[in-house]
Amino acid sequence: MENQVDLPEYLFRRLAQLGVKSIHGVPGDYNLTVLDYLEPTGLRWVGNANELNAGYAADGYARTKGLSALVTSFGVGELSAINAIGGAYAEKAPVVHIVGTAPRSTQDAGACLHHSLGDGNFRVFADMYKSVTVAQANLTDAKEVPRLVDETLRQCILQSRPVYIEIPSDMVRVKVAAPKGSIDLTVSGYDKLTEDGMVDTLIEKIQNAKRPMILVDGFARRFGIQDNINELVRRTGIPTLTTPFGKSLVDERLPNFHGIYYGLAGSLEHSDWVRSRDLVLHFGPLRSDINTYGFTATTDVDGTVVLEADSITIGTTTNGPAPFRGVCVKSLLGKLVARLDEVKPTTGDPFPANPDDPREILRVLPPAEIGSIVDQYSFWLRMSGFFRPGDIILTETGTSSYGGQSFALPEDTTVMTSSIWLSIGYALAASQGVALAQREMITEGARRSGRTILFEGEGSLQMSAQAISDIIRNKLDMTIFILNNNGYTIERIIHGFYADYNDVQPWRNLEAPSYFGAPQDDPSYRVTTRSARNWGELQTVLADPLIQEGKGLNMVEVFMEMDDAPQSLRKFVEYLTKRNSGGK
Amino acid sequence: MENQVDLPEYLFRRLAQLGVKSIHGVPGDYNLTVLDYLEPTGLRWVGNANELNAGYAADGYARTKGLSALVTSFGVGELSAINAIGGAYAEKAPVVHIVGTAPRSTQDAGACLHHSLGDGNFRVFADMYKSVTVAQANLTDAKEVPRLVDETLRQCILQSRPVYIEIPSDMVRVKVAAPKGSIDLTVSGYDKLTEDGMVDTLIEKIQNAKRPMILVDGFARRFGIQDNINELVRRTGIPTLTTPFGKSLVDERLPNFHGIYYGLAGSLEHSDWVRSRDLVLHFGPLRSDINTYGFTATTDVDGTVVLEADSITIGTTTNGPAPFRGVCVKSLLGKLVARLDEVKPTTGDPFPANPDDPREILRVLPPAEIGSIVDQYSFWLRMSGFFRPGDIILTETGTSSYGGQSFALPEDTTVMTSSIWLSIGYALAASQGVALAQREMITEGARRSGRTILFEGEGSLQMSAQAISDIIRNKLDMTIFILNNNGYTIERIIHGFYADYNDVQPWRNLEAPSYFGAPQDDPSYRVTTRSARNWGELQTVLADPLIQEGKGLNMVEVFMEMDDAPQSLRKFVEYLTKRNSGGK
Repeated sequence: MENQVDLPEYLFRRLAQLGVKSIHGVPGDYNLTVLDYLEPTGLRWVGNANELNAGYAADGYARTKGLSALVTSFGVGELSAINAIGGAYAEKAPVVHIVGTAPRSTQDAGACLHHSLGDGNFRVFADMYKSVTVAQANLTDAKEVPRLVDETLRQCILQSRPVYIEIPSDMVRVKVAAPKGSIDLTVSGYDKLTEDGMVDTLIEKIQNAKRPMILVDGFARRFGIQDNINELVRRTGIPTLTTPFGKSLVDERLPNFHGIYYGLAGSLEHSDWVRSRDLVLHFGPLRSDINTYGFTATTDVDGTVVLEADSITIGTTTNGPAPFRGVCVKSLLGKLVARLDEVKPTTGDPFPANPDDPREILRVLPPAEIGSIVDQYSFWLRMSGFFRPGDIILTETGTSSYGGQSFALPEDTTVMTSSIWLSIGYALAASQGVALAQREMITEGARRSGRTILFEGEGSLQMSAQAISDIIRNKLDMTIFILNNNGYTIERIIHGFYADYNDVQPWRNLEAPSYFGAPQDDPSYRVTTRSARNWGELQTVLADPLIQEGKGLNMVEVFMEMDDAPQSLRKFVEYLTKRNSGGK
Repeated sequence: MENQVDLPEYLFRRLAQLGVKSIHGVPGDYNLTVLDYLEPTGLRWVGNANELNAGYAADGYARTKGLSALVTSFGVGELSAINAIGGAYAEKAPVVHIVGTAPRSTQDAGACLHHSLGDGNFRVFADMYKSVTVAQANLTDAKEVPRLVDETLRQCILQSRPVYIEIPSDMVRVKVAAPKGSIDLTVSGYDKLTEDGMVDTLIEKIQNAKRPMILVDGFARRFGIQDNINELVRRTGIPTLTTPFGKSLVDERLPNFHGIYYGLAGSLEHSDWVRSRDLVLHFGPLRSDINTYGFTATTDVDGTVVLEADSITIGTTTNGPAPFRGVCVKSLLGKLVARLDEVKPTTGDPFPANPDDPREILRVLPPAEIGSIVDQYSFWLRMSGFFRPGDIILTETGTSSYGGQSFALPEDTTVMTSSIWLSIGYALAASQGVALAQREMITEGARRSGRTILFEGEGSLQMSAQAISDIIRNKLDMTIFILNNNGYTIERIIHGFYADYNDVQPWRNLEAPSYFGAPQDDPSYRVTTRSARNWGELQTVLADPLIQEGKGLNMVEVFMEMDDAPQSLRKFVEYLTKRNSGGK
């Protein structure tokens, strides 16, 4: 008779095979017995303070490590997390949401159970989740479990989007066939000949292009092709830009890297240059208003080649050309790079001089006046000097996400920011998952050492503050810069500058570690809190070896003017205001 | 030409007419211009720290005042609140959820906007909300606005459940006809003759019954009939019980009030007595597992008369008799009470002696040993002495909701607890809405003075902790007892007593007011924090005139044993464990 395991063990062993070492979530009476299988399977329980934060953290872990899992209870637990799963769907983070549900008999009987709406409908929450997941499995039949789990996890990874798995509590002790081998992750319809033909086509296009460019967007992060993109950029010398979402995907020290494509928020000269390209290799586009500066940072030229994880589209989007399927862009790009010796690409007319280039500005920026309040214009530029290779930097939606566009990054750093979902509070909670994934990957030898650094607004922080407790509970290394500008400045700039609805309750932010139970004087988990009311204080903080090392929990509150904002944000708000009042 | 107003003014004026004075919510770029109309309409903006807490608070305000409104942004904002709206739906709290959405033109164009999933579908979140709301209105057409708003608010109040209203941001400045008169709140299909006939029937039933009883459940709270129920109980002398959800609806000092019907968690003698009744007047039932002690506290006798807001059903539920519609139970009960002089009801055989009667136990309970840790058995009983007429007492799901069943209440107190949704963290955030509604109603002369008192577990508190910031921001009077028993004790008792997944990060709970920015030494808003590690300390705290007065923010942390729990909880967990493992 074949080897058998209890149902949760099957799922957890599959997750462990795929690299998941820690499970996020909150316990509840429909999932407690599932959690008993974590320890025996070698998985760590994160134990979040609430489900929304657990979901955000799982998203951060997934974006860093390639997959994550979240366990919640039926009804109340899953609905608290659905905003996080919506974000993971919109921005393609592969999160496995596992829901502990009521026993099959009570579901079938339509019983009036707690955590239900009382109407006997046990499908209602799974139905809501259909819009924000790419696959669902309700594990009600032992024989079907291996197939359903494998196929659901497969879709999660291939589509890089959330999936949803229900475990009725009476199924927990049910035996299922043990996992066999590993899950097949081949792209559906993959065809080697098609792919090889496409490599030929691209080689030819690169060879023949007179005015090529490369535009790297953030979804390309999900395809596992960052190294090959950088190889392509470096070896071809083709002028390369990123979107805001794609920031940090390309080594910013390369001479042919020219920063972010700002569309109409940048200079007209730059947009004209982009629009005159005869070849644009466009990796992993996210065409949101935010990421395209109000649909103006577009590449609608005939020579556009859009590369998705499993398809390639040649031609402008307005022509609506059909994508070529059956390819895996990861293997395709590997083949392309391996054949780069064959081509001698023209790099075309150079990218026009860029007065917004952070490196250029930093070169001529006078030293900060130590008695002056920290200003948004130079803060983001100057913070560049704090970063080191290996760092993962999160910028919260709002002032920080715009400010972070001005970073001049060292090699091998990662910037993470939301670019369509924009749920404030996300970055704080996500940073917990990022720091945990980073620590695991460093231990596994899968990442070089580096810090997790978060830039968080003091208003956004209030949304998900108890994530700081999760960071402490898991003894994660983290440096948080809290930008305190006295309210929702991004909203003030959009509308109602002095309206009380844009005020937030003023918290004593640096008391957070103590409130959330951080150890005091524990050498194994050090806590440092500092504040900076002017440039001099900030410089002292940044020069502190403890802050530079980034071990334990470091929290720096930086005070800024209420009406100060990064330039890119101001420009964008002009567009937004126009659009919200009915214009396009 | 008729009098016209801007669209949001129409909605806000209608809400104000219906008694709403404060609006809960979080600002966002799709709703900012809507918020501009609050002040001119005389409404107060609560300004919550996050949307889930805003939703919970709106629910608490609605349960206290009869209606509330919540404003969120499209997508991220509304999804963060959906768990709260699910609870309001399940437990019948009339909350108007107002969502600021993108301009119609961008929605029609299917634009890839921030806060959307990026798929051009702008109906997806409204569709999710269909399962947890009883009416929806998307205000895209100025001419339809008055009719749609009025009908949506009407359904909210008549069905006492959430509704959902979308305002595209380009509709904000659109003129609509000003509100005329007030919204018609007559029950659909109301028929005076049917109702009068039903009064005759009930009078006859009460007159003829040999063994009658009255069972009052929590949904009866929504019908506005509490005074008449008490009049009925007092004047007929019929033995009366409540469910856990109905606790505090009946004056507990009445000699014919006999406490909570515990079903099989109570004594068999009591259930046998209930099952031998020939008339049960059953008001506003919620038949959840929790509220019926695992479906055992039932009243399936032929003489059952179930009274809902707009219908009456005569006969057992298992026979499935058709409800009589066309009645309004509020007016019907008024007529019934007015005719009570006509009847001389038999009260039947008396309710059997009740060893669990809190008043009886308190009479013989020896004084607490001042050096001993506070115990769950006597804590809830002894707290009865702290309550005063006018108080509203919230008990969080878990240990507190079970413990609160042991309160011996003075007249005119309200106990609020969740009885099917059971989302932990709810009570803390709901208490903000309750305290605000209570303050308004006292000012309006609609309630006698009284305190808001919350019993909250230290694990549940972590879910929604930033609600404490909302309480401080709005300078609400509140007394919070934090029961610290080192983790999720209710989950421990269900499963995994020592499992680390039932641990919570230990917070320094009494630092909350300082962290969340409470004023220091402000005579207009006093903050008191106290802890009680034994009975002596608790007695000292409770004797403190500041704590007794309950002005400002008062936070008392009571430490209890990890394995201690109210007796009713232990009994119920036995049932739950059996059911979750597959039994019924």
